[in-house]
Amino acid sequence: MDDSKIPYKIYLEENELPTSWYNMRADMKNKPAPLLNPGTLQPLKAEELAPIFCEELVKQELDDTTAFIEIPEEIRKFYKMYRPSPVVRARFLEKALGTPAKIYYKFEGNNTSGSHKLNSAIAQAYYAKKQGLKGVTTETGAGQWGTALSMACSFFDLDCKVYMVKVSYEQKPFRREVMRTYGASVTPSPSTETEVGKKILEAHPGTTGSLGCAISEAVEVATKNEGYRYVLGSVLNQVLLHQSVIGLEAKAALDKYDITPDIIIGCAGGGSNLGGLIAPFMGEKLRGEKDYRIIAVEPASCPSFTRGKFAYDFCDTGMICPLAKMYTLGSGFIPSANHAGGLRFHGMSSALSQLYHDGYMEARSVEQTSVFEAAEFFARTEGTLPAPESAHAIRAAIDEAIKCKETGEEKTILFGLTGTGYFDLVAYEKFHDGVMSDYIPTDADLQVGFDGIPKFPGNMD
Amino acid sequence: MDDSKIPYKIYLEENELPTSWYNMRADMKNKPAPLLNPGTLQPLKAEELAPIFCEELVKQELDDTTAFIEIPEEIRKFYKMYRPSPVVRARFLEKALGTPAKIYYKFEGNNTSGSHKLNSAIAQAYYAKKQGLKGVTTETGAGQWGTALSMACSFFDLDCKVYMVKVSYEQKPFRREVMRTYGASVTPSPSTETEVGKKILEAHPGTTGSLGCAISEAVEVATKNEGYRYVLGSVLNQVLLHQSVIGLEAKAALDKYDITPDIIIGCAGGGSNLGGLIAPFMGEKLRGEKDYRIIAVEPASCPSFTRGKFAYDFCDTGMICPLAKMYTLGSGFIPSANHAGGLRFHGMSSALSQLYHDGYMEARSVEQTSVFEAAEFFARTEGTLPAPESAHAIRAAIDEAIKCKETGEEKTILFGLTGTGYFDLVAYEKFHDGVMSDYIPTDADLQVGFDGIPKFPGNMD
Repeated sequence: MDDSKIPYKIYLEENELPTSWYNMRADMKNKPAPLLNPGTLQPLKAEELAPIFCEELVKQELDDTTAFIEIPEEIRKFYKMYRPSPVVRARFLEKALGTPAKIYYKFEGNNTSGSHKLNSAIAQAYYAKKQGLKGVTTETGAGQWGTALSMACSFFDLDCKVYMVKVSYEQKPFRREVMRTYGASVTPSPSTETEVGKKILEAHPGTTGSLGCAISEAVEVATKNEGYRYVLGSVLNQVLLHQSVIGLEAKAALDKYDITPDIIIGCAGGGSNLGGLIAPFMGEKLRGEKDYRIIAVEPASCPSFTRGKFAYDFCDTGMICPLAKMYTLGSGFIPSANHAGGLRFHGMSSALSQLYHDGYMEARSVEQTSVFEAAEFFARTEGTLPAPESAHAIRAAIDEAIKCKETGEEKTILFGLTGTGYFDLVAYEKFHDGVMSDYIPTDADLQVGFDGIPKFPGNMD
Repeated sequence: MDDSKIPYKIYLEENELPTSWYNMRADMKNKPAPLLNPGTLQPLKAEELAPIFCEELVKQELDDTTAFIEIPEEIRKFYKMYRPSPVVRARFLEKALGTPAKIYYKFEGNNTSGSHKLNSAIAQAYYAKKQGLKGVTTETGAGQWGTALSMACSFFDLDCKVYMVKVSYEQKPFRREVMRTYGASVTPSPSTETEVGKKILEAHPGTTGSLGCAISEAVEVATKNEGYRYVLGSVLNQVLLHQSVIGLEAKAALDKYDITPDIIIGCAGGGSNLGGLIAPFMGEKLRGEKDYRIIAVEPASCPSFTRGKFAYDFCDTGMICPLAKMYTLGSGFIPSANHAGGLRFHGMSSALSQLYHDGYMEARSVEQTSVFEAAEFFARTEGTLPAPESAHAIRAAIDEAIKCKETGEEKTILFGLTGTGYFDLVAYEKFHDGVMSDYIPTDADLQVGFDGIPKFPGNMD
């Protein structure tokens, strides 16, 4: 197609929106390893997961054979509040880079939660409501997930208790206020409200918290309170399933203009955005229909894919959750205090871990000052101030576009712009003031986390 | 048209975007009164305005006969970065209210400046660049305009000096950081950097500033520095011209589905959003082709339309700017310190003032706690956290929709959702904490401002 005919922003019509989520696992030959009961080391059954997760979500979590799962009508209605999200042609960025590459990004930030997290939050709230629950508990790091969940719970009139990583709680006071607008309660983690919180505070009195620790607290509260369940914004199979709406929309939008990406780039913390963005493309790759180069980008200070172990590990610091097989830095791993770029989780989605292990995708790590440089460059050329998380993908997209400039190749790059940085300005301020530093953990630093990974036959090979 | 066929969000295609701005003044029988030289009380000529404003903008300011002015190609390209903005059918809000009214809003908040202000900022920066200037100066209140201008200046590589009302500078530290991301310098006003700032600080040592005062400082700096001009984000004819893109897009989107609004509602501070939103509708009304009910909504604590005088007055506190005929509270008027809802300017666009004076539109004032109630209700039902400014229009739209519920009338309401409230969370916090209060100025309070309005024959009749 004539390149000048392609609009700056491709929007699908409402009647072109996906009506089903796509479950990548159905097309995986090597399925992601099942969650294990940490006591018995046996795969967890639905009835064991039911006290923690909503019934319908347990089904989705365990279903690795159904390729398409219908999106309930009520969720599709809510999606119309802020979707379709556009696929944007980054013409201003291309021009500023002087690259022959064609750069597209799927922008998920145009909703008040500020990110793609709302796609799964509304689904999880819907199933909780359908089950007749009173409320849900969760953890949040940067606050994107907590905000999204508070919006979703407000919509379905559910109680919402959020445990927020302490360092983010302090750095992002305004996120609290947004959650409050939607009626959620927000507690800095670790807190003295839970047994596990008290234990962690005793062991590490000055800790600024971690996602793994906030998860432990939220799970404890959910299991100890009648009518509550725990919900999680990333890592899980169910979350990647819901997030497939990103990739399905992106692919449909590109297909309208006969555009095929050569390279697909996503930032990776727990894998929710990456797994969602790549889903239908990875499906084609798994079925041998098409090939794409797929790149996961993670922070050098929290390098689960690039330097982690592929092993069964706890998803939480308190070690009360099931074991998941994944690339992990150990559930006790906490990124260095100077880390401001998000994507702080110590592990990674089991499905993505398996795909990476099987060679279906690449991973690379980037340092945070170079991430913020890319973020500012992007803001100035494309207008939108990106979330630091998203800026990891921007960094890699720019690097690939510069390579194209050197080789003269006209590659088509698609990346995920997961959210906006309006609540990340403390981090931007550090960058502008020149007080942001990079820290790459040493092998000895990492060993501390690895030592906590459960030892049993076959683990940590 | 079958109501269920109307999508939640109506987006125009890129080739349906307006190619010209619409100049409402061309269709006004009673033209807005000209700006006066405060020394001679004679209408200002182009050559007198040239030291303050860019040449092309002076032309636009004075042109009250050309109905359509072409949008330069480079501005249209930039518009594609964040436009078209959607017309959204507020189905969730309608349902929550149980109203038979059909509510639509034109949403201008999906860009990093967070509001409609970018529409004029990019135009003004373009003309400054075209004239070969080094940079521009401006004032900003809540920071929306300053952010928009910093984005626009960054795009055209112009220097950008922003004087920010001190109370906002302190309440909205993150706005500064966004402006800094785009390379602007930001100074709290009143400052000791200017003669007028020093004078104001001497007279009112503890002042938290006002827009009028920040304007005085920005104008002084522009006129004293070679290669600089002053730009303004509201009030002026040129700004309303650029903002007509809002109304033109909204009308085109509604026309696609044969929707005709009965009531059009906009918040009003200086009039930039209101004037832009209503432009093409008012054009039809002025030409006698159609009738619409048009409502301006302003804060009870800064009630220029509803309680001001229609008189020639200064646009700035330092009384160094030209005189504009408008509804004004006096250039010395400063809203009470508890006012957190924006729309703080003491005057109003001359064109809108004339239209209001001639009975083409209504105005009403609303108290801020009721504005924040409406804002929170809207956030919970429609998802988007609105700017307090925009929430004035939401308040009135909800009130009209409730009236429809009482009478059973199926009126169609269109309002302007000018921006998002992501940088207004200090105000939301006050509202949530129950420490936000309302203050309606007494007649004696207002008299202080009125006393400062210039006295000459025919003024303040």
